[in-house]
Amino acid sequence: MRAVDIIQQKRDGGVLTPDEIGFFVTGVSNSSLPDYQAAALLMAIFLRGMTGAETAALTDAMVRSGSRVDLADIPGVKVDKHSTGGVGDKTSLIIAPLVAACGGVVPMMSGRGLGHTGGTLDKLESIPGFRTNLTIAEMRASLTAIGCAMIGQTAQIAPADKTLYALRDVTGTIESIPLISASIMSKKIAEGIDALVLDVKTGRGAFMKTPESGRALAESLVAIGKAAGVSTQAVITAMNWPIGVAVGNANEVIECIELLKGNGRPDLLENSLELSERMLVVARVATDRADAAAMCRRALGSGAALERFRAIIERQGGNPRVIDDYNLMPHAPGEHIIAAPAAGFVTELDAGLIGRASVVLGGGRDRMDDAIDAGVGIMVSATVGDAVDAGDPILRILYRDAARLGDALPLLNEAVRVGERPRPAAPLIIDEVL
Amino acid sequence: MRAVDIIQQKRDGGVLTPDEIGFFVTGVSNSSLPDYQAAALLMAIFLRGMTGAETAALTDAMVRSGSRVDLADIPGVKVDKHSTGGVGDKTSLIIAPLVAACGGVVPMMSGRGLGHTGGTLDKLESIPGFRTNLTIAEMRASLTAIGCAMIGQTAQIAPADKTLYALRDVTGTIESIPLISASIMSKKIAEGIDALVLDVKTGRGAFMKTPESGRALAESLVAIGKAAGVSTQAVITAMNWPIGVAVGNANEVIECIELLKGNGRPDLLENSLELSERMLVVARVATDRADAAAMCRRALGSGAALERFRAIIERQGGNPRVIDDYNLMPHAPGEHIIAAPAAGFVTELDAGLIGRASVVLGGGRDRMDDAIDAGVGIMVSATVGDAVDAGDPILRILYRDAARLGDALPLLNEAVRVGERPRPAAPLIIDEVL
Repeated sequence: MRAVDIIQQKRDGGVLTPDEIGFFVTGVSNSSLPDYQAAALLMAIFLRGMTGAETAALTDAMVRSGSRVDLADIPGVKVDKHSTGGVGDKTSLIIAPLVAACGGVVPMMSGRGLGHTGGTLDKLESIPGFRTNLTIAEMRASLTAIGCAMIGQTAQIAPADKTLYALRDVTGTIESIPLISASIMSKKIAEGIDALVLDVKTGRGAFMKTPESGRALAESLVAIGKAAGVSTQAVITAMNWPIGVAVGNANEVIECIELLKGNGRPDLLENSLELSERMLVVARVATDRADAAAMCRRALGSGAALERFRAIIERQGGNPRVIDDYNLMPHAPGEHIIAAPAAGFVTELDAGLIGRASVVLGGGRDRMDDAIDAGVGIMVSATVGDAVDAGDPILRILYRDAARLGDALPLLNEAVRVGERPRPAAPLIIDEVL
Repeated sequence: MRAVDIIQQKRDGGVLTPDEIGFFVTGVSNSSLPDYQAAALLMAIFLRGMTGAETAALTDAMVRSGSRVDLADIPGVKVDKHSTGGVGDKTSLIIAPLVAACGGVVPMMSGRGLGHTGGTLDKLESIPGFRTNLTIAEMRASLTAIGCAMIGQTAQIAPADKTLYALRDVTGTIESIPLISASIMSKKIAEGIDALVLDVKTGRGAFMKTPESGRALAESLVAIGKAAGVSTQAVITAMNWPIGVAVGNANEVIECIELLKGNGRPDLLENSLELSERMLVVARVATDRADAAAMCRRALGSGAALERFRAIIERQGGNPRVIDDYNLMPHAPGEHIIAAPAAGFVTELDAGLIGRASVVLGGGRDRMDDAIDAGVGIMVSATVGDAVDAGDPILRILYRDAARLGDALPLLNEAVRVGERPRPAAPLIIDEVL
C-alpha cells in the first residue's frame, strides 16, 4: 500500500477502504508516514469529505491506535456526556455528581480548554489538590464507590488523535466534520462507555456557527457511536452568549457549587437537566424523561448531588472545604466593571469575543503548553434579555495583570450591546438527533 | 503573515496575494516553512485551483527563488521551445540546430526524463563525451559562436521548483494545471529568453490525456509567459503513439541525425518543422510561416542543419564522428522482435505503455537518482496505419538484461494492436494558442 495512492484516491473524491484508513492512522501513530503525506491527505479529506462508513473506519482506527477500556465487570450502564465546547459551558461539573447521585455510573473523561472554549480538567484543577490524572484502576475504584470519576484521557486513549490534532491545527484542517467526529468519538468510545449523550453547541461561541452545521456534526457523531456499539444521542443547543454567570475556571466551579446548592441560573440548570435526564433514560436508571426529571429534582433538592460532588473532590485529592468556603479557591485581585452606557436591554453578549477575552486574561490557552491562571475570569452581571439602567454592571472582569486587562477590554466592549428593546427570546435546546 | 492563514484562505477557495504566494515560495526555498504546511497548501491549490494572476505570481516567485539569466547583450531574439513530454519526442535535437542554422538564437535549457517520458539531456549524453552542464558563460560563448547551446538547468534557475516538485511527487499534487504551469514557465522565464514556442502533448503517452485539458494547460502557459514579458505561443499535438521510429536514448539521437541527413519519418519531420517555423517567425528571423518553411527546407536540404548539430557536439565536448559512424554510440546487445500475429493494419501502439516499457528496460527512470542505460530502447518497425503481414516485425526491442526484457514484454504486447481495417488518420497538430 502506497501513501501517495491513498492521497490521490481521496483527492479525486474516491472512498477509502478501512485498510487504507488504518494504514494512514497507523502511519501517523508510529511516524512511519511522513508529516507531509499526512497533511496532504488531511487537506484532501477536508475538501472531499468522507462517507459515514469512512468516518466510522477512521474512528475505529484511532481507537485501535491505543486500547479500549473494558468496564464490563462494573455493574450498570456506563454513560458519559460530551460537549463540543462553549463559553461558560460547565455542565460536566453538575452532571457527573447529579447523574451519579441518581444511580447512574459516569466514567467521565474530559479534555482541556483550547482557544476560546474552556475545558473541564482546567476547571476542576482550580480546586486545590484536585487530581485529574487518575489511573484506570483508580477510576474503576471511584466508579464502584461513588458511581463517577472525572479524569483526563490516559495515554492509551486514542493516542493517534493527539498527533493528528496537532497536525490539523497547523495545516488548516480543523473544521472538518469527519475529522472532528473521529477525534471526539475515538476518545469517547475508547473510554469503555455503553452510552453517550452529546451536547452539540452552535452559534457565535461554538465551532459550529449554525444549527444546520451543528445538526450535520450531530448526525455524524451519533452514527459513529452507534456503529461502535455505543448507544448515542445528541442535543443541539444554542451557544451565542455564555451559559450561566461565570467564564473562567475557579469562578465556574463556584457557580456549579451554587447551582448544586439550589442557586443556579435558569439557562445553566436547563442545559444540565436536559443532558442529565437523557443520560438517566439511556442508562435505564429512569424509565422515561418524567421519571428522570423527578429523580434529578430530588437529588438536587435533597443535597445528594452536592454531597456527591464533595465525594468526587475528596476521592480525587481535592480540598472539599471549598464547597463551604469559596475563599479557598484561587481568585484574581483586580476587578473591572463594564457598565451599561444607557438604560435599555442587553441585546448581545458575544460568546466568541468573551471566550477570546478570557484567554487574553490568562484563563484559557492558545497552545496546549500555555499555563492557565485559574483565578481570572469574567462574570456576567446582566445577560441577554435583562433590563439595565445606565451605569448598571453588565460584565465584571476578574484580572491579575493590568496589561492583559488592557488587551481584553476592546474585545469585551465589542461583545456587549445594549438596545432600546429586548431581543426576542430564543430557545436553548434547538434540536435532537437520536 | 501566518502559513495557516494562507492555507485556510486557499482551502476556502480564496485568492492569494502575490505577497502570500511569495511567502510560501520563500518558505519552501529556505525551509522556514515546514513540509507539512507546504503539502497542505499544495493540496488546497490542487483542489481549489489558482487564478491566472495567482499562477503568474507563483511563477514569478519561483523565478525569484533564483536569478533570471540576462542575455540582453547577445544580439537577436533569444527563442526556445519546450515540450510537455512525450514518448519518442526528440524534436529538440532537430530544432536547436535547424533554427540556429536559419539564423535564430536558441539558448535551450532542457530537463531529464522522469516516468514514461524521456528527457533531452539524457539523449544528448548518450553521445560519448557530450557535456550538458555548461556554465552560463560557456552558454553565452556558444550562442555567440554557433547560435545555440543545449544545456541543463543551472543551480540558479528557479531552485524552488526542485523542492516543490519533490514534495508534489509524494503528496499526490502533480497533475495540477497551475502547479505544472508555474513549474514549466519559471524555468523557461529564468533562462533569459525573449520568445518561447510550447508543444503541449495530449493523449495516451502524455500527462494531458485529452485535447481539452491540453488546451487548458496551453492557455495557462501562454498567459504566464506573456505576463513575464516573454512572447509565448503553444501548439497542441497528439501523443497517442511514439513520434518517429525510436524510443530510448542513443537510438533517438541516431534517428535525429538521420532526419538531418534527409531520412526522417514524416511525423517527426512535421512536428519539428511546426515548432521550428513558429520559432523563426516569433524571433523575427522569418517574415512569415512560408518564409520560415522555405528557410527550414534550405537548411535541411543543404546539410547546414546537420553541420550545426555537429558544431554543437564539438563545442560541448562530444565526439562528432558519431554523425558518420553510429557504432560509436552505445547499443544494447540483445534484440527481440514483436511481430504481427496476422495480416492487417497496426491500429494501436500505446505510447504510455511503450514509455513504461522503456523505463523497465533501463532507458528511463522512475526516480531522479536512477541510472540510465543509453543503449536500450524500442524501435517502431510498423506504426499506426501501416499494413503488415503475419510475422512482420512491429516493434524491435534493444535490451541488455533478459529479466528486464521479461518485465517489458507484457507491456509491449499490450501496447500493440493489429486490426483488419486501418484506423482513420488523425492529425498530429490539433490546435494552437497564441
